[in-house]
Amino acid sequence: MSTKNQHQDRSPCPLASALDIVGDHWTLLIIRDLMFMGRHEYKEMLEAWEGISSNILSNRLEKLTSSQMIDSVPHPESKRRKLYYLTEKGKSLLPVIAELTIWGFAQKKSNKVPPHLKELLTGSRTKLTKKVLNSLTKWEKTYL
Amino acid sequence: MSTKNQHQDRSPCPLASALDIVGDHWTLLIIRDLMFMGRHEYKEMLEAWEGISSNILSNRLEKLTSSQMIDSVPHPESKRRKLYYLTEKGKSLLPVIAELTIWGFAQKKSNKVPPHLKELLTGSRTKLTKKVLNSLTKWEKTYL
Repeated sequence: MSTKNQHQDRSPCPLASALDIVGDHWTLLIIRDLMFMGRHEYKEMLEAWEGISSNILSNRLEKLTSSQMIDSVPHPESKRRKLYYLTEKGKSLLPVIAELTIWGFAQKKSNKVPPHLKELLTGSRTKLTKKVLNSLTKWEKTYL
Repeated sequence: MSTKNQHQDRSPCPLASALDIVGDHWTLLIIRDLMFMGRHEYKEMLEAWEGISSNILSNRLEKLTSSQMIDSVPHPESKRRKLYYLTEKGKSLLPVIAELTIWGFAQKKSNKVPPHLKELLTGSRTKLTKKVLNSLTKWEKTYL
């Protein structure tokens, strides 16, 4: 083990710090579900396009909670169900998700753009940010 | 296995397509090395802050080459050495790297900003993009 691995952080580079939190196949898809797709429940996330496995989903929700990117409240209809939501830290990933989505779309021109992404890919970033944050605030006013 | 996993792509979502290529702990750090740090050789990348292991580095360089994000030429001083460089596809990740770096920096305010990142974190994005692309073009004129 080299000395550079004995520090708490693996690197002084903020890109590496970011990848320590969101640098995997699944984390940003969960953030996407909460940010754009209105999927706030475990079972809704399980049913997303990518077919995330139950153990990976549980693991990522735990990690995201402990790194204060998301939080949860009991579902109003049943205490056994949880409603997950983005914290401010989680919401601040919007520009990252936007750029990655635009890049992913550019690589695969045949991609059928889901209607909710049209604004992200072609519209004003400021308008999109405002719209997304407003919709999250509206959800919060209802459930938190 | 559900039918949604039988397609070539795991999802119609361009964010998932992007994560299939760059969604891991290391890939974007290699792109960073080539884009900002002037590390074009295998051994230079091995020596970067994060201490990537030799087998992971080889694996990622192969994947990045096969997905046409990077390419390589023999080193002018020795045919046994390779010089890696970013293709246009690889260079187009600049906005993604910029947003992730800004986000990573915001999470860890005590991070000591490496001098080469000051412009990214505080300056004009257009100027930064021009500067980075100019420096990559200069390298290409020398080695390709």
